[in-house]
Amino acid sequence: MDFSIRAANVEDCKDIARMILELAEYEKIVDHVKITQKDLEQDGFSKNPFFHGIVAEVPEQHRTKDGHTKIGYALYFYSYRSWSGRAIYMEDLYVMPEFRGKGIGKALMSKVAQLGLAAGCGQLNFTVLDWNKSSLDFYLNQGCTDVTTDMGYHYMSCKGEALEHLAQP
Amino acid sequence: MDFSIRAANVEDCKDIARMILELAEYEKIVDHVKITQKDLEQDGFSKNPFFHGIVAEVPEQHRTKDGHTKIGYALYFYSYRSWSGRAIYMEDLYVMPEFRGKGIGKALMSKVAQLGLAAGCGQLNFTVLDWNKSSLDFYLNQGCTDVTTDMGYHYMSCKGEALEHLAQP
Repeated sequence: MDFSIRAANVEDCKDIARMILELAEYEKIVDHVKITQKDLEQDGFSKNPFFHGIVAEVPEQHRTKDGHTKIGYALYFYSYRSWSGRAIYMEDLYVMPEFRGKGIGKALMSKVAQLGLAAGCGQLNFTVLDWNKSSLDFYLNQGCTDVTTDMGYHYMSCKGEALEHLAQP
Repeated sequence: MDFSIRAANVEDCKDIARMILELAEYEKIVDHVKITQKDLEQDGFSKNPFFHGIVAEVPEQHRTKDGHTKIGYALYFYSYRSWSGRAIYMEDLYVMPEFRGKGIGKALMSKVAQLGLAAGCGQLNFTVLDWNKSSLDFYLNQGCTDVTTDMGYHYMSCKGEALEHLAQP
């Protein structure tokens, strides 16, 4: 199937917000989603963006029954590892279920890898849910390593009242 | 003990590089460290920096036997979570052993939290090694959650030949 990958622009935020929600439904965490189209527009397409995005599109003749032609996306941002330096972090990789198995997910991830290498990044990092075996297998098949299992790194988060409290001088 | 926390500048890179190596020795991964003072100068203090830093300093009378007054640091960068939006990521938090237990680590982390909140970030994220119980306890005592244990998120990485291969169109 024909598809194209291109940099996301502000007009894509409606579709990205829709697909973020679809991904959250798949990951069974839909009540955690607080992001809106407006947030994405502000945070990704202002002067100092917090993230960048790419979208996968199919031609009109392959649009979904709901009329969508934007059928996948990845979000990413540049980051840093203190031992190894420049890195790129992929915050989401999603392809709508009916378009899977056609190389679109791999093409999106490949594009993120290309962007990272072009910016001098030595690694591409991301997280995956341990019960999501098909995604985990996909990533391991690409030569990715599970840093949590191999080295014992745990991902930690501080938010809400704990973050406010921590920030008290 | 008196200490101060301030934004890192390019002149701090020599001390930050030294402390990155000290931290890696503590984490038993010193052979993974490829970063140099020059990398830090280029990557953190050019037009589009890959990270920001803060340093902890003590007055001259408390300098170490090797003459160091810069005795702790944290690196951070802004990031994004697709469900919740703006986030700040703390890539290192280190205080030299002889200065621990004086609130300097907490003050560094508090500063990162303040910077995050000021930028509209709803969470502060980082990783910790699961065998590093004293750090893990420190973070849990601050109200942080272990997202790997609680939700099953594994931290993944693609680098070297795997990254080059992934980036092939």
